Amino acid sequence: MPPSSTTIDRPHRAARRYIYAFGSGRAEGDASMRDLLGGKGAGLAEMTNAGLPVPPGFTITTEACNAYFAAGERLPDGLFDDVLTAVRDVERETGKGFGEPRNPLLVSVRSGAKFSMPGMMDTVLNLGLNEETLGGLVALTGNERFGWDAYRRFIQMFGRIVLGVEGELFEEAIAAAKTRRRVTTDTELTADDLRDLSREFRAIVHVHAGRDFPNDPHEQLDLAIRAVFASWFGRRARDYRAFNSIPDDLGTAVNVMTMVFGNMGEDSGTGVAFTRDPNTGERRLYGEFLTNAQGEDVVAGIRTPRAISEMRNEMPAVYDEFQRIAERLERHYRDVQDLEFTIEKGRLFMLQTRSAKRTAAAAVRIAADMVEERILTRAEALGRIEPGQVDQLMRNQFDAKARAAATLLASGLNASPGAAVGQAIFDADRAAEAAGRGEKVVLVRIETSPDDFHGMAASEGVLTARGGATSHAAVVARQIGKPCVAGVGDLTIDARKRRARLGSHDLAEGDWISLDGSTGDVFLGAIPTVEVRFEEQAGLRRILDWADQVRRLQIWSNADKPEEAILARRYGAQGIGLCRTEHMFREGERLDIVRDAILVAFEATRAKARRAAGEEVTADQAAAIERFDDAMGKLERLQERDFRGIFAAMTGLPVVIRLIDPPLHEFLPDREALIEQVTRLETLGRPADDPELAEATRLLAAVETLREQNPMLGLRGCRLGLMIPDFVTMQTRAILNAAIAEKRDGHDPHAEIMIPLIGHVNELKATRGLLEAEAKRVEAAAGVEVDYTFGTMIEVPRGALTAGEIAKNAEFFSFGTNDLTQMTFGYSRDDAEGGFLLDYVERGILSANPFQTLDIDGVGQLMRIAVTAGRAARPDLKIGICGEHGGDPASIAFCHGLGLDYVSCSPYRVPVARLAAAQAALTGAAERDR
Amino acid sequence: MPPSSTTIDRPHRAARRYIYAFGSGRAEGDASMRDLLGGKGAGLAEMTNAGLPVPPGFTITTEACNAYFAAGERLPDGLFDDVLTAVRDVERETGKGFGEPRNPLLVSVRSGAKFSMPGMMDTVLNLGLNEETLGGLVALTGNERFGWDAYRRFIQMFGRIVLGVEGELFEEAIAAAKTRRRVTTDTELTADDLRDLSREFRAIVHVHAGRDFPNDPHEQLDLAIRAVFASWFGRRARDYRAFNSIPDDLGTAVNVMTMVFGNMGEDSGTGVAFTRDPNTGERRLYGEFLTNAQGEDVVAGIRTPRAISEMRNEMPAVYDEFQRIAERLERHYRDVQDLEFTIEKGRLFMLQTRSAKRTAAAAVRIAADMVEERILTRAEALGRIEPGQVDQLMRNQFDAKARAAATLLASGLNASPGAAVGQAIFDADRAAEAAGRGEKVVLVRIETSPDDFHGMAASEGVLTARGGATSHAAVVARQIGKPCVAGVGDLTIDARKRRARLGSHDLAEGDWISLDGSTGDVFLGAIPTVEVRFEEQAGLRRILDWADQVRRLQIWSNADKPEEAILARRYGAQGIGLCRTEHMFREGERLDIVRDAILVAFEATRAKARRAAGEEVTADQAAAIERFDDAMGKLERLQERDFRGIFAAMTGLPVVIRLIDPPLHEFLPDREALIEQVTRLETLGRPADDPELAEATRLLAAVETLREQNPMLGLRGCRLGLMIPDFVTMQTRAILNAAIAEKRDGHDPHAEIMIPLIGHVNELKATRGLLEAEAKRVEAAAGVEVDYTFGTMIEVPRGALTAGEIAKNAEFFSFGTNDLTQMTFGYSRDDAEGGFLLDYVERGILSANPFQTLDIDGVGQLMRIAVTAGRAARPDLKIGICGEHGGDPASIAFCHGLGLDYVSCSPYRVPVARLAAAQAALTGAAERDR
Repeated sequence: MPPSSTTIDRPHRAARRYIYAFGSGRAEGDASMRDLLGGKGAGLAEMTNAGLPVPPGFTITTEACNAYFAAGERLPDGLFDDVLTAVRDVERETGKGFGEPRNPLLVSVRSGAKFSMPGMMDTVLNLGLNEETLGGLVALTGNERFGWDAYRRFIQMFGRIVLGVEGELFEEAIAAAKTRRRVTTDTELTADDLRDLSREFRAIVHVHAGRDFPNDPHEQLDLAIRAVFASWFGRRARDYRAFNSIPDDLGTAVNVMTMVFGNMGEDSGTGVAFTRDPNTGERRLYGEFLTNAQGEDVVAGIRTPRAISEMRNEMPAVYDEFQRIAERLERHYRDVQDLEFTIEKGRLFMLQTRSAKRTAAAAVRIAADMVEERILTRAEALGRIEPGQVDQLMRNQFDAKARAAATLLASGLNASPGAAVGQAIFDADRAAEAAGRGEKVVLVRIETSPDDFHGMAASEGVLTARGGATSHAAVVARQIGKPCVAGVGDLTIDARKRRARLGSHDLAEGDWISLDGSTGDVFLGAIPTVEVRFEEQAGLRRILDWADQVRRLQIWSNADKPEEAILARRYGAQGIGLCRTEHMFREGERLDIVRDAILVAFEATRAKARRAAGEEVTADQAAAIERFDDAMGKLERLQERDFRGIFAAMTGLPVVIRLIDPPLHEFLPDREALIEQVTRLETLGRPADDPELAEATRLLAAVETLREQNPMLGLRGCRLGLMIPDFVTMQTRAILNAAIAEKRDGHDPHAEIMIPLIGHVNELKATRGLLEAEAKRVEAAAGVEVDYTFGTMIEVPRGALTAGEIAKNAEFFSFGTNDLTQMTFGYSRDDAEGGFLLDYVERGILSANPFQTLDIDGVGQLMRIAVTAGRAARPDLKIGICGEHGGDPASIAFCHGLGLDYVSCSPYRVPVARLAAAQAALTGAAERDR
Repeated sequence: MPPSSTTIDRPHRAARRYIYAFGSGRAEGDASMRDLLGGKGAGLAEMTNAGLPVPPGFTITTEACNAYFAAGERLPDGLFDDVLTAVRDVERETGKGFGEPRNPLLVSVRSGAKFSMPGMMDTVLNLGLNEETLGGLVALTGNERFGWDAYRRFIQMFGRIVLGVEGELFEEAIAAAKTRRRVTTDTELTADDLRDLSREFRAIVHVHAGRDFPNDPHEQLDLAIRAVFASWFGRRARDYRAFNSIPDDLGTAVNVMTMVFGNMGEDSGTGVAFTRDPNTGERRLYGEFLTNAQGEDVVAGIRTPRAISEMRNEMPAVYDEFQRIAERLERHYRDVQDLEFTIEKGRLFMLQTRSAKRTAAAAVRIAADMVEERILTRAEALGRIEPGQVDQLMRNQFDAKARAAATLLASGLNASPGAAVGQAIFDADRAAEAAGRGEKVVLVRIETSPDDFHGMAASEGVLTARGGATSHAAVVARQIGKPCVAGVGDLTIDARKRRARLGSHDLAEGDWISLDGSTGDVFLGAIPTVEVRFEEQAGLRRILDWADQVRRLQIWSNADKPEEAILARRYGAQGIGLCRTEHMFREGERLDIVRDAILVAFEATRAKARRAAGEEVTADQAAAIERFDDAMGKLERLQERDFRGIFAAMTGLPVVIRLIDPPLHEFLPDREALIEQVTRLETLGRPADDPELAEATRLLAAVETLREQNPMLGLRGCRLGLMIPDFVTMQTRAILNAAIAEKRDGHDPHAEIMIPLIGHVNELKATRGLLEAEAKRVEAAAGVEVDYTFGTMIEVPRGALTAGEIAKNAEFFSFGTNDLTQMTFGYSRDDAEGGFLLDYVERGILSANPFQTLDIDGVGQLMRIAVTAGRAARPDLKIGICGEHGGDPASIAFCHGLGLDYVSCSPYRVPVARLAAAQAALTGAAERDR
């Protein structure tokens, strides 16, 4: 606190400094004080200091906001006295008086937190007006209609925002006035009409707010400041912070600034502009302006704003000044700025500057361009793009032009990214039905519950009125990969009539809407979407090239088929981290072969053991062996073909192939259906030797034999290979022979054979023994040596805990964090995600779904144990991660810190992972340098 | 190696010393050299050094055995030359000559490892005989029949044991000879008959061993030594070692000793004796002898041996000498000895001394008595009893007298302890059927497979011919708590005729047999069993009192009902470590109430939340609430009554009560049965509103809602309490009110409320909040404060990993090692134990079933992490274990080392645990003192 003799003299002064003034080329704050002044306040101070024309005013700090809540929603002692002092300073500077009828000082009041945040209080303009000061305004402007219009707007805005009166009530009154006056537009209402209307508005406030509308400007200011503070803990603001991990104790600042008027004639005007196009990133002033208008008019759509470029002809001097300022601000902040300005009688005033929100495409282009323009370093550019934005660029997007031209109905939380277009349906059953008929639908609900799941799954996207980023709709939508906009307050649904109101628009069931889950915007109609080929996204590729130079982690991809491997390589994958061989088992005729093998697998294996021990086998057993070997032979040929395709696609790069993993019953028919079939046929009196009944009974018996209480913890992974060794030897042959064939074809295959579900080193040793003996046979038969390595997944807690022993027998580890998370938490993902896990996240028992974002405290601790022990036992151990977390930026950062060699994710996530890995490396370097 | 000039002179001498001689009051070895000389060799050396009469001989060391295998089953260079040198020393001492026709030296050859071990080579007597030396033997004894009998026995024994000829062939030849001679007993065969027989035996050897019977005594000795070595890696010996964790590289020694003859007239004899009764532990010489007989005659049962006490009258001087020697040996070894002796013409020779095998009852009595006799300290006495023996004393046992009098048919591996009596049945299906008719059966199989499981489960016990301690029969029997004797080589089964041969006895299906799974003995007929009340086992109680003074770990017990708590306290439990409240839910009418509650639980909980938020509930919802509250109220009253009983039984001691844990569908009807019922009724054309169909459909829908893919990892434990808070509050009320009522009745209840399945500290916080608020309400209503503590199970890996955070919110931990093992290994116990886990143990992939013996490397590591972090966060944290491992001695030792406060096990295991905890403390102290 700066020492000041006046501080001591004035007993009401607040105990600490809560107010920072700006005006006349001097500000008490600056850009570095975002924490204290919020983004907007810091921007105003910075612009003021830079000599830019900013109307005088002051900022009440975020600390005042925190003190307000700490004191039980009371303004800190002395704060309001300090506010009045600051007002007096502004009065002095402007020569106007707050509440002074002849030359009234009017102010705007706006919230301004450190981060721009939806759900915070909107602007209240023209504060300080009452019927007396209105007279002064009319005299100054010479425009009575303007005066009354400003006044009724002030009442309306203040009434709604500060006093909490339903906005609809004011709209209805305007509509009634127009009906009475038989006019259709607001502009046709006269000054008298508006005077009447403003009085009617005050009556509405009296009834619905339970108090008179405050005439005293000081009281207006007091109430407005409290309203800004209160909005900090509004539902949407809280949800937004929770979703974006912004702490609750940042608080919001309040900006009080002298009103300037863009509606004082044709040499006045107002506008908003971006220093670059926020949709495409193109380097040109982008925005709109209106002459003789207030900012609200731009938004309200009463008059059509004009492109900012037209200002150049209209007001060339002002335009030049604005352009210079814009450029200066962009250079100053080293980022694209979102500017608000007003021209009062030819004089330009800057009302706001802030970093511009931008589309993913724009973010990438701007970052790349700013490196070329030497505004940013490459490292800084990499930090300017969110991994989520890269993700968006990999998805279908709305056509930028069409999106810009579409009617925005409302905005909500960007709860799950992506573009969705469909007919609005208000009920999950009907949504599922319509989708079943091949229609594209968007499910629109007040909120969703588990009962709506089928409707969500069938829809293109989901839109809800209630609930934040951790609401059922948001969590489920992200899980199932559907775009979702949640918490759109402006949505009401009349389920019976199958109608909804969205913003100011009436929506009938079946109307087309478009959701942008990446921004939270909802548009009317069907906006066309585009798929932009990765190869054509020059900016993105440039950024990712830089990322590749910076990152230490390699990015591999999970791919089960040659097509996926090709795609992964296109996106920059440096290897295949997980090829799930059993995924090849499920297609078409293959499933029949697999079933054939499974039905006799155990019998044939026992019979083979008997034969190997020199004992006799029965004719039935011999037949089982033959049938089994026949099916396995077919599978081997199919798998070899698949592996060849993948090796060809990945020539020169490693391919990790995991041996069979899932429980066998997954390949058999559904048990319940068989029980029903058998019961039905028996009830119908079919004899036991009826062919249909006999076949169903036989299948049911096989299914029963393989049935397990908890298949997730049962006979799968390496356990399966140890019980039915032919699975291991058959797959080994297919892999080795594929590699040999590809080598002969001039390719360079690198097979890494991976054993799943190892919990004890002896499992690995036994499997390795089987596998290497078979590999030797294949190599000897072909007379070719194959470059293959042998490793294991670490996905069982015991595997992580005993990783030292395991590493002695494995050349690489790959963390299977899906299973590791299941077992470390004791969660069955299938059961938990549709059930209690959702509730856990919603109630904050868990901060995130651990299947999406790696649980660092638990699962991460096991990983750390495994990495430390594994590397101690084998310093050159290669370690990666192939669980779903391999594509999650936060998890990638953790893996980088842990010193893994690579992360492996789905092909579409490869670009995201490339950026995230670079950011992790940069952050890590920055932390080391600290 | 002692320097010796002769060593240098003789090029064939082995590179190291492999032979230790004994004789004439001097031996090169002593009792401390068990590792090198084996138990038998060390005993012979020790007795020789003590001046006891031992026939001269020598021991070939265990190192020679290891060298034999290391060299690929070749005798080490020079070894046999050293053997011949040692033989020459014996010749010198005895004045006899090896292979010398006139005064032949005959020797016995026996194996002798560090630990006495079934499956090792039997004794070969009379080695050195051939038709020439036989003449000398006849001349010396003046008994031609004796000579030829000795010779045919030698051929038979050597042929079977050393040359591997089927023993049956010799028996058939004897039978044929008796038929030819029209006599019925062996003794009726004349010297000529025996001469013919011995020549016939040599012919049998020629045909079946593919070689001539060796006449050269040196060749006989060479072959016999190799046979002893080879028996070290025989199947049964290997299995025995695996079961008893004896390393394979100990090797066996070979003892070669001068033959003395107990059959040289009425002043000769032979016998075996224990220094105390090995059945009861009574302090008296116990054993048998025969005059004019060789040791083999005692075993063969041709003549009935006489009680050792009768020797006192017959040969008073020899008896006195023997008694003095016996006492001296017992004092010397400070343990009961098992002695073999022979009297040759009035001269006593000691042939063997070793620690005596004894029954559990004897072990306890002997240990206790030896403390009184100041032979042992209390600590030593505690070390002399195996926890398994205490376990046996807690089970039904055979009546000791009846057991001693019963006909022993055969012996095998003591694979699973306990006494089983039943009719022998040779097929699992028939065993299950007979058991279904209420008959008591013992399943007798060559070996068992998973297909036999139902038969095993229905039987009193299991007997197999093949397979060791980790065979299917052994592992499953231990799992299901059935006595089992495995690997009885003397068992053949003719399944078709339903007959078996067991030892020398023919057995028809349905004959009664008795198995002692604790010793591996199989008896003919039904031996009565006795249950000895714990209170009456004075020796055991004395030992356990000493154990209580030594141990640091407290022993608590798991008990779900008052009766179990009473039993546990009788056995010495110091608290209840786990009271599973839901076990009270399953009995009779309770299950109906529980089902009633479950069917509406979720609906009622949602409706209650709605009501609490001030929203309206429908009539249906109100009805659900009412029905739910009604059922929960009934349950509360029942639980309160149960808790009162337990608190009363455990007054003054802590009672850990775990809140509801299992998934709810466990309380509902079987899903498959419902599917069948619905399908059947629908197929029969019943309308949907048919009452039976409607009810089944309703139940099925409820079951489907609760259904989970992996219930072990689903909605259970604390998750359930967080979804349906009424379970927590209801149980809290029942516990608190029960404690209050018992306090008012003058009891001293100590409730410890335990939350299961905590994986994240927030789960614990949320549950604790619910629980403490309810507890405060109960206490306030009653005006009584209750002494209760709040803690959690550590049974989820993540719970262990984050134990530091959890300990801040828990006053105690209890390791639930069943679940912790399931999740750490990723094994579903239900699935694994019936499947691959068995195979894993049998193949040695796992050294033990981790559900029976704690896995120290994996699960133990998690426990160590949890103990360290938990105690760091809360130094006075009380930590116990309540999984099944709490009763396993090896696991108890680990828990002691980990510094736990208590282990909790089933009531019957409490005495076992008391001893094991004391042994752990003594071992720990000994290790610290080292």
